[in-house]
Amino acid sequence: MSEKYETKAVTHGAEGVAHGAEACAAKAVRLDAADELAKSRELFALPDGVVYLDGNSLGALPRAVPGRLQDVAAREWGELLIRSWDESGWWTAPERIGDLISPIVGAAPGQIVVGDSTSVNIFKALVAAVRLAGNDRDEILVDATTFPTDGYLAESAARMTGRTLRPVRPEEVRDALGPRTAAVLLNHVDYRSGRLYDLPGLTAAVHEAGALAVWDLCHSAGALPVGLDEHSVDLAVGCTYKYLNGGPGSPAYLYVAARHQARFDSPLPGWTGHANPFGMTPEFTPADGATRGRVGTPDILSMLALETALGVWEGVGIDSVRAKSLALTDFFVECVRAYVPAGRVELVTPSAHVERGSQIALRCDDAGDVMRALIARGVVGDFRHPDVLRFGFTPLYVGFGDVERAARVLAEVL
Amino acid sequence: MSEKYETKAVTHGAEGVAHGAEACAAKAVRLDAADELAKSRELFALPDGVVYLDGNSLGALPRAVPGRLQDVAAREWGELLIRSWDESGWWTAPERIGDLISPIVGAAPGQIVVGDSTSVNIFKALVAAVRLAGNDRDEILVDATTFPTDGYLAESAARMTGRTLRPVRPEEVRDALGPRTAAVLLNHVDYRSGRLYDLPGLTAAVHEAGALAVWDLCHSAGALPVGLDEHSVDLAVGCTYKYLNGGPGSPAYLYVAARHQARFDSPLPGWTGHANPFGMTPEFTPADGATRGRVGTPDILSMLALETALGVWEGVGIDSVRAKSLALTDFFVECVRAYVPAGRVELVTPSAHVERGSQIALRCDDAGDVMRALIARGVVGDFRHPDVLRFGFTPLYVGFGDVERAARVLAEVL
Repeated sequence: MSEKYETKAVTHGAEGVAHGAEACAAKAVRLDAADELAKSRELFALPDGVVYLDGNSLGALPRAVPGRLQDVAAREWGELLIRSWDESGWWTAPERIGDLISPIVGAAPGQIVVGDSTSVNIFKALVAAVRLAGNDRDEILVDATTFPTDGYLAESAARMTGRTLRPVRPEEVRDALGPRTAAVLLNHVDYRSGRLYDLPGLTAAVHEAGALAVWDLCHSAGALPVGLDEHSVDLAVGCTYKYLNGGPGSPAYLYVAARHQARFDSPLPGWTGHANPFGMTPEFTPADGATRGRVGTPDILSMLALETALGVWEGVGIDSVRAKSLALTDFFVECVRAYVPAGRVELVTPSAHVERGSQIALRCDDAGDVMRALIARGVVGDFRHPDVLRFGFTPLYVGFGDVERAARVLAEVL
Repeated sequence: MSEKYETKAVTHGAEGVAHGAEACAAKAVRLDAADELAKSRELFALPDGVVYLDGNSLGALPRAVPGRLQDVAAREWGELLIRSWDESGWWTAPERIGDLISPIVGAAPGQIVVGDSTSVNIFKALVAAVRLAGNDRDEILVDATTFPTDGYLAESAARMTGRTLRPVRPEEVRDALGPRTAAVLLNHVDYRSGRLYDLPGLTAAVHEAGALAVWDLCHSAGALPVGLDEHSVDLAVGCTYKYLNGGPGSPAYLYVAARHQARFDSPLPGWTGHANPFGMTPEFTPADGATRGRVGTPDILSMLALETALGVWEGVGIDSVRAKSLALTDFFVECVRAYVPAGRVELVTPSAHVERGSQIALRCDDAGDVMRALIARGVVGDFRHPDVLRFGFTPLYVGFGDVERAARVLAEVL
């Protein structure tokens, strides 16, 4: 991390809150002035007076998106009509946009297709992983603490492939691995706590057991380096509406490592994943490459909005995003310590950088009421049942002044 | 059918083509003047000088859509951000829009949810149908002549439920039904020939054999009455980008008859189909009603474009659409007979109204070249391998003058 983001914790000592507040406010100004990603904020349309710390649920609107949507609807659809499938590049959008996501998650081109929801892609990836693992491996491990849709779809994948699903806590995965293990579905960052798991180490352990690693990147992609290729991940899925700012419910993506593509056997072999989709042959012959992960007709309006949204990444490296993300979350914790009376909130997110995603979760009594009060004062995070305040920090549009204000308003509310 | 659409076939006799052409042109004027759906055309943005007969592939743009998209992106997403899931009604869009489709396909409210692609919905519907049929029925029948994605997904559904898939021609379905039959997947209108199948009769036959009928409505919904409830269809799916004009790749829908909902057991049990989606419980408890057919986060931009597109149906009954559709296709055949030299094209679509969807398919040598020439002259249909010219007639924006011009230009090209 670069010097400019250094955020040594303020000791909440005898000088009292006033001194800490003054120090935080001054520091925010300094950090913002030195922030090389600050200019990215201009690429987003954010409402005046709002500190938006819910980009880990729905990313903010990139300014270029409404204009592109207008053009896609009025000209590409309205005027060119059916010709746009070729002339406007609609047909190849899933692969083209996949290749825009690739550098953000550390994948070489040709391994990601965009389309369907994360849940549907989890089903594809997990069933395909089980089939790649072969018939003598009859167990699927799934993170028991994960976002629940992963567990629901894993249960269905197990039921429909005749495997047993075994939910385990992430820290138990290494012990649970064995010759029965076919595949392991893990979340890179826990949606509630913001804890970052050890993708390189866990993937290596899964491979050592002869199984396949399937990663859900919903809460990490766009916020921190993933290194899919570098760490030999087998399959991965993720949504695009959090740190990738694709818009509400924008299409998800599926990563199939190049080495597995020829044997990727989808449970949803739709016509657009066919080697010759317009041949209309009765037999399904899968396309080469990641294309065989496609299913139905791509959802063009949402997909092209996403393509435009990904334009904010031009010239931005994921390492600088990660550096700022850690600085933002460090600084938020520092400001909370300075402003909020001791004992009123409890830090849920790990302090160690190596275990932290791009959010801070605080346990707090009456968390639901507290979040409503925060939102009424223009600080938007979200509440997770039963007692968690979640604050997400998107480095491309959140500044250090936002962070200071959020902590200050939180202290006022409490 | 009302008197005004009467379109008695012109006998292509000794008077020759010139007389027939004069008669066709005059008749088109009369028919357009009497067309009570003519005003609907104003609700669509169609390029000048184009006769658009490809609405059975991609429906035209309803004029209200770009404005709605602008509002959804700039205000609902950009300003209200995460609040829009409640305040802008995003969360309930799949059911709300399903209820807009219901009257078009003859379903009472509460039985249709919008989301995912047709292919994904076929998988859900067919697996659920097999599970509803019980373990002692081990065979799935699928229309062997259908749009191929139906067959591909049916094959996967069979493989993953341990059933056998048996492709049959639609006319063989009755003989193929038996005590082994779990479910039958049929297309209401064949995508290539435009043939309309006997949904009431086939559904009754399937039920008599104790099996479930799953219908694919892609090429019928919005063009003719379907009567899902009236004919006791069990499950149905359809796309929304053809006669429902939802836009390129707009979300598909799933119909689950009310009597089956409590036992509908989805192979894709995603979190948004959960009874308490924000409870984040590790066990999947399906929601009541059609909601349990939902999977992942709804794709809001595309979904709300579709909602606006469905506004063109306000005050329009499907029976009047069907009457005009038959008049248009009758008149097209009449004009083709009058203009095109005998023997140059062959009618693939059945002449009998009871067997005709809303398209006319003509077999023709060099069909690919002919279609390219037609499109260059502003008459847009499409080509289906190897030798079929397809012309789709969307009654809400195609007029009789368009039909006459299309046939005239076809004759010129030939």
